[in-house]
Amino acid sequence: MKKILNNVETVVSEMIEGIVYANSNVYKVENYNVIAKKHIPEKVVLISGGGSGHEPAHAGFVGHGMLDAAVLGEVFTSPAVDQVYGAIEATTQGKGVLLIIKNYTGDVLNFELAAEMAQANGIDVKSVIVNDDIAVEDSLYTAGRRGVAGTVFVHKIVGSASENGLSLEALQTLANKVISNTKTLGMSLGGATIPASGKKSFELAEDEIEMGLGIHGEPGTHKEKLASAQVHVENMLKLLLKESNIKDEKVAVLVNGLGSTTLMELYIVNKEVNNQLKAHGITVHKSLVGNYMTSLEMPGFSITLVKLDEEMTKYLDFEIKSTLF
Amino acid sequence: MKKILNNVETVVSEMIEGIVYANSNVYKVENYNVIAKKHIPEKVVLISGGGSGHEPAHAGFVGHGMLDAAVLGEVFTSPAVDQVYGAIEATTQGKGVLLIIKNYTGDVLNFELAAEMAQANGIDVKSVIVNDDIAVEDSLYTAGRRGVAGTVFVHKIVGSASENGLSLEALQTLANKVISNTKTLGMSLGGATIPASGKKSFELAEDEIEMGLGIHGEPGTHKEKLASAQVHVENMLKLLLKESNIKDEKVAVLVNGLGSTTLMELYIVNKEVNNQLKAHGITVHKSLVGNYMTSLEMPGFSITLVKLDEEMTKYLDFEIKSTLF
Repeated sequence: MKKILNNVETVVSEMIEGIVYANSNVYKVENYNVIAKKHIPEKVVLISGGGSGHEPAHAGFVGHGMLDAAVLGEVFTSPAVDQVYGAIEATTQGKGVLLIIKNYTGDVLNFELAAEMAQANGIDVKSVIVNDDIAVEDSLYTAGRRGVAGTVFVHKIVGSASENGLSLEALQTLANKVISNTKTLGMSLGGATIPASGKKSFELAEDEIEMGLGIHGEPGTHKEKLASAQVHVENMLKLLLKESNIKDEKVAVLVNGLGSTTLMELYIVNKEVNNQLKAHGITVHKSLVGNYMTSLEMPGFSITLVKLDEEMTKYLDFEIKSTLF
Repeated sequence: MKKILNNVETVVSEMIEGIVYANSNVYKVENYNVIAKKHIPEKVVLISGGGSGHEPAHAGFVGHGMLDAAVLGEVFTSPAVDQVYGAIEATTQGKGVLLIIKNYTGDVLNFELAAEMAQANGIDVKSVIVNDDIAVEDSLYTAGRRGVAGTVFVHKIVGSASENGLSLEALQTLANKVISNTKTLGMSLGGATIPASGKKSFELAEDEIEMGLGIHGEPGTHKEKLASAQVHVENMLKLLLKESNIKDEKVAVLVNGLGSTTLMELYIVNKEVNNQLKAHGITVHKSLVGNYMTSLEMPGFSITLVKLDEEMTKYLDFEIKSTLF
């Protein structure tokens, strides 16, 4: 395995040390692999998380106008119940806590058990489950559809709304609206290496891609020949538009890199997505391009479409403080 | 070649279309591969650029508090003189223009010829040359030391100072101070594939890394065995501290990914850098971690140290508007 590491047993805790050094607005919650904002206003608290290996998700989205805390499991492994509970207890401001869970069986189970524990201790906790991946019903680690890159729109839109003082109930309703209007489809050009195993998760031939692959390397719908950006985007948009039931609405786009695909390629994909949506008569309000939810160093990308209404647009556009510098 | 492209001849122009769709604050200058800010205040204009393939550098740094324009050459190829001149002409606000040039022979020649043309046309242009890479003296495309990831500190510190109204002369002096206090060393775990050639630029054995490699795959100082993050950081910091002449000053750190190295690994490197600098009695004022200046999908990273004084710290900390959302 060719990676810059010290010890495969301690990748997550060492990464957390590095994250805290890089972001003076966050700290590590004692005893738990949880990254939290140092100063949380008196508002509903937003917590997300899941297995590590998807960086910057989710710890990179802890900050003004987005998450208040992220719970970090081991690589591709759900966080434990006590970790999630630790995050809730450390961050609650007495106004309620919303858990944003990606739909994986382990994550749903552990986040919801933690929510029950917190409720029993007098903390008002609600949760939402993101299931934006349209590729497959049921999967290796999931009953129903998987939660993937579209989750960052829930972080952003609901995060901005929480800074604007919405109640827990209103935020849960808004989050569910974002989720039901967010659809993602990804494709992979090859595998990635999980530190603990030291081996590539899977191999594809030099001219072969896999459509609909999950962010942990779960099987997609089919393999096909590598084609042009234009052709792949055409095929993916056809499926996404059918699922999204978008006619003349405004949309937000995320072209998300899975790890080792260059920004150059992602921008070319973004050009295709925007030009093709325009040809369909659809207005793109905003396109995001970059590595927002990765699968370690997997080559590939996903396209997310969000059908926007006025409320979602307002919070999507709410200005947040930069984390780049 | 396994990349998501349409046509290897048009990667840069297609990428530019995708960038413009993704960032509503910039536009493409007519007839030239130049990305510029739509609204430039009445101030000294900052322009940088170079070959493409280093994204997000430099087009991703066009924005509030950083660059006003970026000139995009073909992949790993200097922009032409008329492109640089086109960028100057399209953006000047009558207060002078500062060119931030990475030290490659072609870039220096073409940017400085364009500066002369602009001077002849009554536009006050000055330039600075970034040469932060301590690995080698002279190189494949360079007389003297190469300009690499440390360039982003020049963008940020001088960009903030330009928003604060400093004169062209003052900005050039500040830029040269940043440059003389910025040192970078990189290491690579393998090659990358330039679209036009379709082949990996070089290969390394499975347990081998190259120290001091340039961001176009230019030879470094030597090959060595892959070791732990701790050992590589120790070796690299030893050379960087010797060159930087840092004793008890505050520093800024950039742990820059070259393309396909995971954020997980970069954060682990950042943990090592911070802990080891602390052990040397050095205070880290700020650490940046991420892919700021890549070499397509090359695996590897660089470490940059900036010896800070009060003026540099003030402008480094100046808050800029987010480009993440």
